[in-house]
Amino acid sequence: MTIKVAVPKETAPGERRVALVPSVVKQLDKLGVETLIQAGAGETSGFDDADYEGAKVVGSAEELYAAADIVLRVQPPTVEDAGKLKEGSILLGFLSPHEGDSRIKNFLKRRITSFSMELVPRITRAQSIDALSSQASISGYKCALLAASRCSRLFPMLTTAAGTIRPAKVLVIGAGVAGLQAIATAKRLGAIVEAYDVRSATKEQVESLGGKFVETGVKAEGEGGYARELTAEEKKQQAEVLADHIAAADAVITTAAIPGKPAPKIIETATVERMKRGAVIIDMAAETGGNCELTKAGEDVEHKGVTVVGPKNIPSTAATHASEMYSRNLYNLLALLVKDGELNVDFDDQVIADSCLTHDGEVRHGPTRERLQGGNK
Amino acid sequence: MTIKVAVPKETAPGERRVALVPSVVKQLDKLGVETLIQAGAGETSGFDDADYEGAKVVGSAEELYAAADIVLRVQPPTVEDAGKLKEGSILLGFLSPHEGDSRIKNFLKRRITSFSMELVPRITRAQSIDALSSQASISGYKCALLAASRCSRLFPMLTTAAGTIRPAKVLVIGAGVAGLQAIATAKRLGAIVEAYDVRSATKEQVESLGGKFVETGVKAEGEGGYARELTAEEKKQQAEVLADHIAAADAVITTAAIPGKPAPKIIETATVERMKRGAVIIDMAAETGGNCELTKAGEDVEHKGVTVVGPKNIPSTAATHASEMYSRNLYNLLALLVKDGELNVDFDDQVIADSCLTHDGEVRHGPTRERLQGGNK
Repeated sequence: MTIKVAVPKETAPGERRVALVPSVVKQLDKLGVETLIQAGAGETSGFDDADYEGAKVVGSAEELYAAADIVLRVQPPTVEDAGKLKEGSILLGFLSPHEGDSRIKNFLKRRITSFSMELVPRITRAQSIDALSSQASISGYKCALLAASRCSRLFPMLTTAAGTIRPAKVLVIGAGVAGLQAIATAKRLGAIVEAYDVRSATKEQVESLGGKFVETGVKAEGEGGYARELTAEEKKQQAEVLADHIAAADAVITTAAIPGKPAPKIIETATVERMKRGAVIIDMAAETGGNCELTKAGEDVEHKGVTVVGPKNIPSTAATHASEMYSRNLYNLLALLVKDGELNVDFDDQVIADSCLTHDGEVRHGPTRERLQGGNK
Repeated sequence: MTIKVAVPKETAPGERRVALVPSVVKQLDKLGVETLIQAGAGETSGFDDADYEGAKVVGSAEELYAAADIVLRVQPPTVEDAGKLKEGSILLGFLSPHEGDSRIKNFLKRRITSFSMELVPRITRAQSIDALSSQASISGYKCALLAASRCSRLFPMLTTAAGTIRPAKVLVIGAGVAGLQAIATAKRLGAIVEAYDVRSATKEQVESLGGKFVETGVKAEGEGGYARELTAEEKKQQAEVLADHIAAADAVITTAAIPGKPAPKIIETATVERMKRGAVIIDMAAETGGNCELTKAGEDVEHKGVTVVGPKNIPSTAATHASEMYSRNLYNLLALLVKDGELNVDFDDQVIADSCLTHDGEVRHGPTRERLQGGNK
């Protein structure tokens, strides 16, 4: 029997992406699998059913899940959707391993082999599978646009017959994939860009994009490309130096995240109060609690003339290209799991071993296993 | 008696700009005038009362208008505000000479000398006074950002470990000040930019910004830097060629305006239906009826996967810099009207003669006078 790879329409509110774009269907063909797509799945990301040449369009989610050996998703399935998965089938997607215990228990009960894109190791070989990075680079670009759109000042210098407008000062906090893309985009727009990261090794990258690195004296290289959590004293030192730079900025973009933990609070209300009227903070970490004390996810907070924007699901706002990149990431993982039309889940492969959340009724991801066991006590 | 120049807080809904920024107060000082500003006037554009060093802060609009010899505004006064102007005083601002007859009649009754920024002649000497241009260049920049923010595709090319994302195609219609700034901004962001204008003389300017000029064979150079109205046949020819370029674009920015007339309809619904899902139209002419049939001012219209955005009062979204530029434009006009602390309204000066809407109970602007006389029949 030919392996059936199925792509449902996303159901999470506000999610416009899709796990498969038409251009990747041909590649799936070459893997020797059959592709099913739910009717209308690509609509919000710019693709009609007819665009999915080579794929079979299936009317309902029930029918789709019932036929699927492998399901490709963007967002984690709801408990209800997880219940539709065929016993023993394979699921690929962002699965939020740090939360949603009932969903994960459902995977165990139904012996789902689930691969969580959040767990893809940050090793060179897995770069083409790294969906966190591909989506983060879109978020960085979009947050810089958001900053420029919401700021009461122009980013570029403008010379007119009535005189010159000075370029805006933009501060980017966190120089990971998203931060670097935000720096690059703000520079493209003509702003003067400063950037800060607790990992001082990022200094060179910031400077290569034309940004000025802010030195605070705190160094906190962590695991997996993320920063470690700071001590109280380090936080204080960082905050004091940063506060002066924040106060001077026309736009601040914060991108500091620690996986599975609340976002570090970097900007205090008192610091926001030192900013200019018309300045803006774009808090990319809004969904995990925010880098600014005033941030509310999905809302704009006006505080003494400063606007604090807490965007949600940013990649979804560039749904076509975000889906295209994500779809390629999924394909590259799938290509490790399927050889010549046959399933080949090889746990000796680090990428497969690390990415796997559940398999055959067991949790394979250490921290998730410990959390679930803790919860069962 | 020292001439008093007064700046009220704008009252039009959504207007965040102010007619005077703190840095221009010193220049007014040098003209030998006294400056009054209404409390809170600069708040929404980024300035506290305390920032206006050298100006007298006045609590109420009534008090301000009662004292003012010269009033600087952004938006036209309401009939109520116009009633507060001191008899025989001078008013500078956008006064919408093409509409608002009761307001203009009020000016006549009260013998207001009013200067309308829309009437500033487009001659070299008056460039530093040309507020339509200064605000249009902000609109062009902002519309390009809006297009990039709302488009489901990224403007820049993005090369990642999972492959390359092609840059977006942007089409700018109308290559005046706003259009040229939109072209420049979209190019900065990395898009492939095409542009079109009925005035073929703009081709060189488009190309100098890195845009590709769309040739339709229609030439319609008009007066005052604007295009003339097209014949039905010219419109058809233009529409057919443009439709193919619109259909291929990921983002279209339209900026076509004819002063005092409804905006020309350039994009038919049928053409929108040929566009890709996820594509976006930013219609800068929304407030005068729109360049696209589907446009609604102040709203987003979703039509078969395409979003048509009809922004209102765009310069106000960059209130700090827009006010700074506008304030300089007003200052440069004021400097023609005040010599050594004395009023000197010299109608032999073309800039003063052309800009003046009403003076001493008479309408000085020809088309407005004809309209008002027609209405009195």
